[in-house]
Amino acid sequence: MTQSRYETGLQKLNQIDGLAGTKVIESLQDICPDLAKFTIEFPFGDIYSRPGLDLKSREIATVAALTALGNCAPQLKVHLQAALNVGCTEDELKEVILQMAVYAGFPAALNGMLAFKEVLKRN
Amino acid sequence: MTQSRYETGLQKLNQIDGLAGTKVIESLQDICPDLAKFTIEFPFGDIYSRPGLDLKSREIATVAALTALGNCAPQLKVHLQAALNVGCTEDELKEVILQMAVYAGFPAALNGMLAFKEVLKRN
Amino acid sequence: MTQSRYETGLQKLNQIDGLAGTKVIESLQDICPDLAKFTIEFPFGDIYSRPGLDLKSREIATVAALTALGNCAPQLKVHLQAALNVGCTEDELKEVILQMAVYAGFPAALNGMLAFKEVLKRN
Amino acid sequence: MTQSRYETGLQKLNQIDGLAGTKVIESLQDICPDLAKFTIEFPFGDIYSRPGLDLKSREIATVAALTALGNCAPQLKVHLQAALNVGCTEDELKEVILQMAVYAGFPAALNGMLAFKEVLKRN
Amino acid sequence: MTQSRYETGLQKLNQIDGLAGTKVIESLQDICPDLAKFTIEFPFGDIYSRPGLDLKSREIATVAALTALGNCAPQLKVHLQAALNVGCTEDELKEVILQMAVYAGFPAALNGMLAFKEVLKRN
Amino acid sequence: MTQSRYETGLQKLNQIDGLAGTKVIESLQDICPDLAKFTIEFPFGDIYSRPGLDLKSREIATVAALTALGNCAPQLKVHLQAALNVGCTEDELKEVILQMAVYAGFPAALNGMLAFKEVLKRN
Repeated sequence: MTQSRYETGLQKLNQIDGLAGTKVIESLQDICPDLAKFTIEFPFGDIYSRPGLDLKSREIATVAALTALGNCAPQLKVHLQAALNVGCTEDELKEVILQMAVYAGFPAALNGMLAFKEVLKRN
Repeated sequence: MTQSRYETGLQKLNQIDGLAGTKVIESLQDICPDLAKFTIEFPFGDIYSRPGLDLKSREIATVAALTALGNCAPQLKVHLQAALNVGCTEDELKEVILQMAVYAGFPAALNGMLAFKEVLKRN
Repeated sequence: MTQSRYETGLQKLNQIDGLAGTKVIESLQDICPDLAKFTIEFPFGDIYSRPGLDLKSREIATVAALTALGNCAPQLKVHLQAALNVGCTEDELKEVILQMAVYAGFPAALNGMLAFKEVLKRN
Repeated sequence: MTQSRYETGLQKLNQIDGLAGTKVIESLQDICPDLAKFTIEFPFGDIYSRPGLDLKSREIATVAALTALGNCAPQLKVHLQAALNVGCTEDELKEVILQMAVYAGFPAALNGMLAFKEVLKRN
Repeated sequence: MTQSRYETGLQKLNQIDGLAGTKVIESLQDICPDLAKFTIEFPFGDIYSRPGLDLKSREIATVAALTALGNCAPQLKVHLQAALNVGCTEDELKEVILQMAVYAGFPAALNGMLAFKEVLKRN
Repeated sequence: MTQSRYETGLQKLNQIDGLAGTKVIESLQDICPDLAKFTIEFPFGDIYSRPGLDLKSREIATVAALTALGNCAPQLKVHLQAALNVGCTEDELKEVILQMAVYAGFPAALNGMLAFKEVLKRN
């Protein structure tokens, strides 16, 4: 019997984001549970569950994009922790953030690095 | 004797971007050669030459960021080719672009994928 | 006798934004009263006062844009309340925010939804 | 018997975007058919098919967001036509674009209006 | 007798943007003449006509912002020419664009510099 | 004997940003000292130290860009103070921020102005 997208997504979310993912999902329950459901189904059930790119590379891509966009600090912090969870090292993530100075400017890299500092302090 | 940042950067640029990198540098010579020089020295001499993250992961980060930002198609195409040059597979890059639908929306992913289609046609 | 743009705008601002609009205008008085004046005259006196699009649709457009841009949380909150003021339902606004996951990514939609949660808590 | 998300989405895409939607889907077939599939399933099968917001309001939200983001002209043109298809008038869409001068600046509004001019010329 | 905002704005637009400004205004006449009117009245009649900052500094600010935003090439070109019209030198403008590599990344600076190259070729 | 880029940059950073610059550099020491080093060397050692544009104009460009981007409030505040340090008047900076309403929308200008209000309160 095949898993539903929701079941696959929830399992993948737990594997990648751990407690932080659960908190995001919970924060949506009293305002828009369907957004929680879609977040589990599409990003985690459909995308992160695909073969073709390992989870470490997926998190490097996500950390790079969120650092560059620079307007979604909460999600960046969740994914910096997620990146550590799936095997990225601290030094690798610092390199990714640093590299964003080239593509999105120094403020984006600085704010990304200070977000990572907060994430590491919690651990 | 140590290499200058410029020499290190030029070598790294040639290794990663190949002909496309040379063209970017040439296009700047008659308008602002110092921007060409800085492009070689800082992104390539200082950043891409650092240990701590392999070139494949660096290009995944760059492709992710440029797809997500969505306002720099010429640089995205150069780095999609660069990513192939340093060992990313076509399928891996499609996964990176696809994943950006989650973080920057479907238009960003669609435009990134069509940029990749153009890059692959040239090869 | 015709109203000035300022008078028209102030009336429209009060109708749409209510107390929150007044607070924005007041917060500017000791730093740049001309920005307050322009905010009343152009957005509210010139644009929101135009026929051709009902106020509900105007606020849907604004909520969509501010959610998608993702870098102006204070203004998004003001306009989520404004949208309720002019007759949008909570469910309609949740749909608008949810839809932005498609065009600006899940982080933009998540942050927009949590901003709406704050707005609703105050009421 | 219930429709699959893909079937629901394809029907909704045809209803909203018409020929332009079909062309987007076709353009993806030889590079990443899964992105075509996800585009049908999530935006159109999951989101646009939801009750709670009429299609006219959904397209107003999309046109506003894409005009404000300002980096996805092809998708803006598709949705300007889609907005006309689902019952928005030319004047209503001009108002939405015009209003974006307030939230994303005059260049965004100007480029949105010129995109609309192109869309109207084709009809 | 005091000038209207429209008259003041039109005069300022002609002084700053010259022929390119006239073309922008004309391109809007058959799609949305009110956007042309607002463009003359608010940016040029209200803002650029204010004392407190010289026109050279105003154009430096505009060129910096449009280079950094990176999604409005037509307006950037108009204002690079406008900056030359009000007395900025080629070298000063190259410095402004170059500096944007720091705040918005190298792609923004590269695309800004190549836009300037096009503007200079026309002269 | 020529100064190193680091020495030139540190001197320029102190001249422009004063204490705020030192704090940024210090905040990076325990997470990524190399980002501190690059921030000194490239923006300050390479760019702000160039002839061809006076420091006042450089800060006007930076304030304009950071206000328009709207996603880097900490850096905007540092550079508003820096702009005052190198001779921009309060009124000139208000004009720059106000003008960004035209190019990046009223929310960007409002948030920029309120950031400036905070900077001025500290002095």
